[in-house]
Amino acid sequence: MPKILFAAEPALWPKYEGHLFHWLSEAGIAAELAPDLGPPEEIDYIVYSPGSDVQDFTPYTRLKAVLNLWAGVENVTGNETLKVPLARMVDGGLTEGMVEWVVGHVLRHHLDIDHVLAHQDGRWVPKVPPLARHRPVTVLGLGALGAACAQALAALNFPVTGWSRSAREVAGVTCLSDPGGLEQALARAEILVLLLPLTPGTESLLNAAHLDQLHPGAILLNPGRGALIDDDALLAALDSGQIAHATLDTFRTEPLPPEHPFWTHPRVTVTPHIASATRAETAAQVVVENIRRGEAGLPFLHLVDRDRGY
Amino acid sequence: MPKILFAAEPALWPKYEGHLFHWLSEAGIAAELAPDLGPPEEIDYIVYSPGSDVQDFTPYTRLKAVLNLWAGVENVTGNETLKVPLARMVDGGLTEGMVEWVVGHVLRHHLDIDHVLAHQDGRWVPKVPPLARHRPVTVLGLGALGAACAQALAALNFPVTGWSRSAREVAGVTCLSDPGGLEQALARAEILVLLLPLTPGTESLLNAAHLDQLHPGAILLNPGRGALIDDDALLAALDSGQIAHATLDTFRTEPLPPEHPFWTHPRVTVTPHIASATRAETAAQVVVENIRRGEAGLPFLHLVDRDRGY
Repeated sequence: MPKILFAAEPALWPKYEGHLFHWLSEAGIAAELAPDLGPPEEIDYIVYSPGSDVQDFTPYTRLKAVLNLWAGVENVTGNETLKVPLARMVDGGLTEGMVEWVVGHVLRHHLDIDHVLAHQDGRWVPKVPPLARHRPVTVLGLGALGAACAQALAALNFPVTGWSRSAREVAGVTCLSDPGGLEQALARAEILVLLLPLTPGTESLLNAAHLDQLHPGAILLNPGRGALIDDDALLAALDSGQIAHATLDTFRTEPLPPEHPFWTHPRVTVTPHIASATRAETAAQVVVENIRRGEAGLPFLHLVDRDRGY
Repeated sequence: MPKILFAAEPALWPKYEGHLFHWLSEAGIAAELAPDLGPPEEIDYIVYSPGSDVQDFTPYTRLKAVLNLWAGVENVTGNETLKVPLARMVDGGLTEGMVEWVVGHVLRHHLDIDHVLAHQDGRWVPKVPPLARHRPVTVLGLGALGAACAQALAALNFPVTGWSRSAREVAGVTCLSDPGGLEQALARAEILVLLLPLTPGTESLLNAAHLDQLHPGAILLNPGRGALIDDDALLAALDSGQIAHATLDTFRTEPLPPEHPFWTHPRVTVTPHIASATRAETAAQVVVENIRRGEAGLPFLHLVDRDRGY
């Protein structure tokens, strides 16, 4: 009978407990599962989030896998005590939520809804936006989330360019890779969406030079990772008008400190890391599927390549 | 050589002239086309908008068809001097613009973007919206525009119910018809989109009784026709909270008078009839295709059934 340690924020346990036991039972797996399970050397799996008390994996000598509850793993991959397979969360609910946030905010900017809301003043000034087919959007990052967002935007007729470090193919999307492709992808973007993983190669990718390569007056959406952006360079680009607006869901420090200039900047919208929340009902099923595979001797899904960092 | 009278608002002529001649030339049709073409009895086709000076069609004895530049024809169908085929505008650009407006405002309400924009105050309060798959949307009217919007919303995982007077089928959408179906369609709507034609049967369809059948706290979007709504009943339902918000693009009187309570109501967003603007570049091609069919003796496209009124 496998022992599964739930090593995540205590507040998550009541949200996950019922769903995890439900899916274990559906999978015919009798297991012990709790946030506290006795000796580390008896644990088979850890359901994990980086905010957990468990930071040293050395005592977990029998561990088969660490199953992360989040898509982002940059706070786990550097942990040198972790020697067993690490799986990220690839959850349908998480992808759906991200697509909804991205499409919603792309259309908000495309239709200039902020302007509409700020001008309920009795003056009838029809200002018809261009069609989406004339509004190029670029998505940086073509993993599960980036590819899903790029396809949803393409389905609404936006001409979508996607860029990833290694070459990808996404139906309906112009896919570029390599540094040369990045320059092209930035140059054509009227709206830019950041969905890259955070790695040493992507940290501060949106620096002054790259912000300058965007279509003048571009819109920036960052539901990916805060540290993809050089904050000072972004503030300068907003002040110069090179970036017309930034809608940011992720930040270098979260919660974003109340005194951070993003909160009060008239061209910045802050959303509190809600674009892609793991939903317990769908995520629990993904975790249990990996436990089922581990017990059946099958390869785990959604494994992190620790050399690449994602 | 057919004679084509451009009988629409004078401001439209410079927008359409080049596109119409371009598509006529592409179709190999040598024609005379102008806003003023001499004797009415020599005119073969009228490119029309209801705001035109031409209100009496009796002198146009040789007329083959009236080709409306707009999707809505309620100001033309009652004209008893019009005896020849009347085609409405069914324009890809018009449909695309409508889909963008509808999806954008549905997502705006789904994600509660208004709340986000009004709370840029330094307080980090993550409020994760439900997934679209848990947000039922109802579209009243399943013509070209309604069906396209319903499908775009279904593609984003919203459970979509559509209702039309006569039974329709739209892939991925639960389609209802008849008065009994209307009651069901209203009862399940957390977000309701009005895209019905305006006819004696739909005028004030959204009266107090029907507004009361909606899911409590429902959101109403009206990019269809202003007179589909009983304005006083809507204001009462907004004040009671039965309707949480109304985003309105069409009105009984346009421009909406500055003193109309919709402008200042905190739960109403007014957009100035921009959801579906005919775009000259795409509409001209649709008009010319009908002229080509008329000259070739083929049946016209997009004909209005004058008995039904649309």
